Amino acid sequence: MLLAKIYVTLKPGVLDPQGEAVGNGLKAMGYKDVTSVRVGKYLELQLDTDDKSYAEEKVDEMCRRLLANPVIEKYRYTLEEQR
Amino acid sequence: MLLAKIYVTLKPGVLDPQGEAVGNGLKAMGYKDVTSVRVGKYLELQLDTDDKSYAEEKVDEMCRRLLANPVIEKYRYTLEEQR
Repeated sequence: MLLAKIYVTLKPGVLDPQGEAVGNGLKAMGYKDVTSVRVGKYLELQLDTDDKSYAEEKVDEMCRRLLANPVIEKYRYTLEEQR
Repeated sequence: MLLAKIYVTLKPGVLDPQGEAVGNGLKAMGYKDVTSVRVGKYLELQLDTDDKSYAEEKVDEMCRRLLANPVIEKYRYTLEEQR
């Protein structure tokens, strides 16, 4: 069993209204030190395989095909042996 | 300047309909090895301070007060010097 941890973030320059809303919320609550907020997605996938290079290929494909929008988002991931 | 990377995930046992939908999508696309999907949030906050212990305290407070719902979510974060 492998655990894939996937991080999907907006590319730099892409407007992030959700991040802006969170940032405004934090400022309104008094956190004046916050200069920028970007919001992304974090996914954990459990994979029923122990073959790391196979899993890597598959996870990359899943990111490109479903989990991220390659036009505006970038992604990175790590693979861990499942405890 | 510090960069806080915040990971917000559902506590184990809390139903994750979004993760289930993603998992079903992946299975329908032929990825039979995927046994479980959990979806969380990933946030990057830029902080206009260099005091790590102060920032840590503030980020923890922001997580508890706005960024995570402590009833159903847990969070973790890292602080990095901004390049």
